[in-house]
Amino acid sequence: MDTQPLYRQLASHYLHAIEAGTLAPGERMPSVRALMARHDVSLSTALQTCRHLENQGLLEARPRSGYFVRMPGRHALAAVEEPVPTVPDPAQYVGIHERVSAIIARGRQSPGAINLCGASGAPSLYPVEALKTAAMRALRNDPELFGAQAPPNGHPAFRSILAKRALAARINVHQDEIIVTYGCVEALNLALRAVAQPGDVIAVESPTFFGLLQILESLGMRALEIPTSPQTGISLEALELAVQTYDNIKAVVVVPNLQNPLGSIMPDANKENLVHWCEAQGIPLIEDDTYGALSNADTPLAALKAWDHSDNVIHCASINKVLAPGMRLGWIAAGKWHARVEMLKYAQSRPNEALAQITVADYMASPAFDRHVRRLRGNLREQRERMAEAVAAYFPVGTRLSVPAGGVCLWIELPGKLSSEALFNAALVEGIHIAPGVMFSNSRRFDHFLRVSCGMPWSRELDHAIRRLAAVVSRLLGA
Amino acid sequence: MDTQPLYRQLASHYLHAIEAGTLAPGERMPSVRALMARHDVSLSTALQTCRHLENQGLLEARPRSGYFVRMPGRHALAAVEEPVPTVPDPAQYVGIHERVSAIIARGRQSPGAINLCGASGAPSLYPVEALKTAAMRALRNDPELFGAQAPPNGHPAFRSILAKRALAARINVHQDEIIVTYGCVEALNLALRAVAQPGDVIAVESPTFFGLLQILESLGMRALEIPTSPQTGISLEALELAVQTYDNIKAVVVVPNLQNPLGSIMPDANKENLVHWCEAQGIPLIEDDTYGALSNADTPLAALKAWDHSDNVIHCASINKVLAPGMRLGWIAAGKWHARVEMLKYAQSRPNEALAQITVADYMASPAFDRHVRRLRGNLREQRERMAEAVAAYFPVGTRLSVPAGGVCLWIELPGKLSSEALFNAALVEGIHIAPGVMFSNSRRFDHFLRVSCGMPWSRELDHAIRRLAAVVSRLLGA
Repeated sequence: MDTQPLYRQLASHYLHAIEAGTLAPGERMPSVRALMARHDVSLSTALQTCRHLENQGLLEARPRSGYFVRMPGRHALAAVEEPVPTVPDPAQYVGIHERVSAIIARGRQSPGAINLCGASGAPSLYPVEALKTAAMRALRNDPELFGAQAPPNGHPAFRSILAKRALAARINVHQDEIIVTYGCVEALNLALRAVAQPGDVIAVESPTFFGLLQILESLGMRALEIPTSPQTGISLEALELAVQTYDNIKAVVVVPNLQNPLGSIMPDANKENLVHWCEAQGIPLIEDDTYGALSNADTPLAALKAWDHSDNVIHCASINKVLAPGMRLGWIAAGKWHARVEMLKYAQSRPNEALAQITVADYMASPAFDRHVRRLRGNLREQRERMAEAVAAYFPVGTRLSVPAGGVCLWIELPGKLSSEALFNAALVEGIHIAPGVMFSNSRRFDHFLRVSCGMPWSRELDHAIRRLAAVVSRLLGA
Repeated sequence: MDTQPLYRQLASHYLHAIEAGTLAPGERMPSVRALMARHDVSLSTALQTCRHLENQGLLEARPRSGYFVRMPGRHALAAVEEPVPTVPDPAQYVGIHERVSAIIARGRQSPGAINLCGASGAPSLYPVEALKTAAMRALRNDPELFGAQAPPNGHPAFRSILAKRALAARINVHQDEIIVTYGCVEALNLALRAVAQPGDVIAVESPTFFGLLQILESLGMRALEIPTSPQTGISLEALELAVQTYDNIKAVVVVPNLQNPLGSIMPDANKENLVHWCEAQGIPLIEDDTYGALSNADTPLAALKAWDHSDNVIHCASINKVLAPGMRLGWIAAGKWHARVEMLKYAQSRPNEALAQITVADYMASPAFDRHVRRLRGNLREQRERMAEAVAAYFPVGTRLSVPAGGVCLWIELPGKLSSEALFNAALVEGIHIAPGVMFSNSRRFDHFLRVSCGMPWSRELDHAIRRLAAVVSRLLGA
C-alpha cells in the first residue's frame, strides 16, 4: 500500500503521463472538477495535486483557464546571472550607430525574414481600427486641424489625460508640467540636452536600449555603463562606486520598469533609494518609463517620479509600446528643467502637430483604452511564455534566460560564450532576424546575449523559427 | 488752347478727380471702353491716359479687372535703406529666446488681439477640407497606419513627390537623398548639428528669422550677423569681409527666396556666386527655402541647391507656409552630410509618422495642388498690396517700407528711430499684436523696424487695426 498522501499519489500518476507524452506540452490538465469525479477525491486533494505539479514546474496556471502542461525544460532553465557590483569601466564616447543601423537595415533588406529584432507588439495587438475611427472624428470635428499651428507644449486634451493617467503610476503632475514630444526618443534627447553638454558623462544601465546609446553618440556625450541586474535593475552599489571613482557624472538615465533589454523591474525600495541618492548627490535623474503599463500586474508599475519631491527626476514616456507604435507620441515632465526643455523643444521641432494628440486623447478617455491595455498585457504574457518555453525546449543546454514579468522581449544568454553577432549572420541566412547583444552596450560585453522579440502572436511558424534558430546555435557551438 | 497731348489733358482731368477725392482710393477707374465713349477719344489715347496715371503712381492695374485708384501715399513711400557692406560685428552667443517667447506669449494671452505677429497665412487660405478628405482616404486605405513604425527617412510616396516638385526650383535630387523632418525647423537643427559644434560660428543674415536665432541659442552656437539687403538678400561683400576678418566660420545659413523678415529675393547671379564662393571656401551652405513657391512669379524661384555641383549645399524646406501650417512636415536634402543627418534624425526623433506624409503626397500629386498654390499666391499678393497701401495711407511721414515680390510679411522701418518694442507694448493695449524688430537680431539693431503679417484676408477690421496702429506710432513719435 502506498504510504504517500493521496495528492502525491495522484501527482505522480500525472507526472508519468506527462513524461510519457500522454499529456503533451501545452495541453490542458484535467480540471479540478474532472479530477474529483474521475478519482473520487475531495476538492482539497484535487487542488493540492495540481499545485504540487505546478511547484515541480510541470504545470502552469493560466488565469480563468486552468492548468496546462509546461513545455519541457523551461522549469530547468537557469536565469541570467546577476552582475557583480564593481567599479564600472571609465566613461567612453559612444560609437554604436553604424553597428546598430547595419543590423536593422540587414533585416529590412531580407523581406521574408521573421522579425525577432524589434521591441514593439505586432500591429494586430493594437486597436488600430478604433484609433482610425477617433482620427476620422477629429478630422470631422476640429476646424483648426492642418490650417493652424498646434497649441504650445502639446494639445490640452492630450496633456490632461496624460496627467490623469500618470496618477496610476503614482505620479502627480499638472498638465502644464507636461510637454508632448515626438516619442520617448525626442523626450530623452531634450532631457539630456537640458542637463548636459557634449563631452559630459552620463551613467546608463548596462546593457541598455540601443536608442539611448545612439542619442548619447549623436550628442557627443560619454556613456558610463553601470552593471544592471536582470531582476532588480541598475545596481545602486555600482552606481555609488562609480560616483566615488569618477566625480563628473552629469545625469543618470534609468528604465526602472521592464528595462530594455533585460526586462528587470526595480523594487520600490530601490526606486526610492535611487531617487533620494541622486537628489543628495545633485545628479539629475532621467527615467524612461515606456513599458511601465505592460507588466503582468493589474496596475501600472510605479515610476521613479513617484518618489521625487525636489523636481530632480525628469520623467520621459510614450504611447509607442502601449497604444500605437506608428504615432510617434511621447512626453516629458522635466521637473526643475521644465523651462529649458520647453525652449529646447520649441527650437528643435516646434509643438507636435495636433491630429495624433486629439486622436489618442479621445481614445484614452474611453473605457476601451483600459480594456485594450488589459488584453495587450494578457497577450504579451502569453507570447512571452510561449517564446520562453520554445527557447527552453529547443536551445542547447547551458542557455540562460530571464523571463520578465512584463514587456515585449526576452534576454537570452548563449552557452559557451557563443557570439551573438555570428549567430545574427547565420540566423539571417535562415530567414530569422534577431537583435544580437552587441546592440546593447558600447563594449562587446554582451556579445553572447541576444534579445528576442515576443511581440508577435504565437504561431507554428514562430515555433519553427525558434527551432531553426536553436539548431543554428547548436551548429555554431559544435563548429 | 491746351498744347498738351490729348492723353495728358485727360490724365490731369482725372488727377484732379483723384486729388479731390471724387475718385476715392481703391475705387475703380472708368474702363478704357468708357473713357473712349465718354471723351470721344481713340483706344490708344484712352490707354495712354491710364498708363500715364499708372506711371505717376496714381492708378494700379489689376489683372483682368482694370485700373484702380491707389491708396494715397503708397507711391511716395521710400524703400527700406540698403545696408552698407562693412565688416560685420564679431560673432556672439545668442540670447533671444526669452525675448521672443515673451512677445509671442503676450499675444496669446490677449485673446481678442489681431494677430499681425505670425508669418503664416490664415487657415482660410489653405485647402484644409481637401487635406482632411485625403487624410480620411489614407485612414481607410492604409492598413499599416498607427500600428507599425513609419518607413525610414520618410514615406516613399511623399519623398517621391518632393523630388518631382523640387525640379521646378531647379533642384535635381533623387528621393533617396531626401529625409523628411518635423518642419523646416527640425531640418535646420539637423543641418547645423551635422556641420558644427557648440561654440562654433555660424554666418546668418541680419535681420533674420527668429526661429534660426533660437536654434543657434539652443545649440550653443554663435551667430555672425551679415548685413542683408531688403532687395537682393545677403551681402556677398560683407560675407567676404567677414571671412577675411574672422577665419572660423563653420556654416552660412541663408533664406535665398523671400527672406524672412525682409522679403528679399537673391538674384540668380548672387545665388550662383554664393554657392561657388562657399564651395571654394570649404564652408557648408545651408539654405532655408520655405517661401520659394510664394513669389508673384508663375514658377517657383530657383533654390541655391540648383547651382550646387559638389553637394556642399544643404537644402531645407517645408510645406508649412505653402500647404498646411498645422502639419509640421519639412524635409532636408543634405548633400555630402546625408549619412550624418540620417543618423541625427534617427537619434533625435525617429522617422516621421506616416499619416501626414501620405495625406500630403496624395494632395500634392493632384492638379488641385497647383490650383491651390496659384490661388494662394494671388491672395497673398492682394493682401500684401492692401496692407502696404494701408501702411502708406495711415503711417506718419518718414515710414519706410519694402514691398516684397512674394511671401507673407512686410518689413517696416519706423520714422524717428522709434522703438518697435515700445510700439509693441502700446499696440497690444489697442488689441494689435505685432512682431517688433528686436525679434530678428541678436543685437537691438532693428528695434525701429517691425514685421507685419499679411496672412489674413483684407477686411474693414484689418484696415481699422492698421489705422489704430499708425495712430499709436504718431502718438509715440509726438511723446
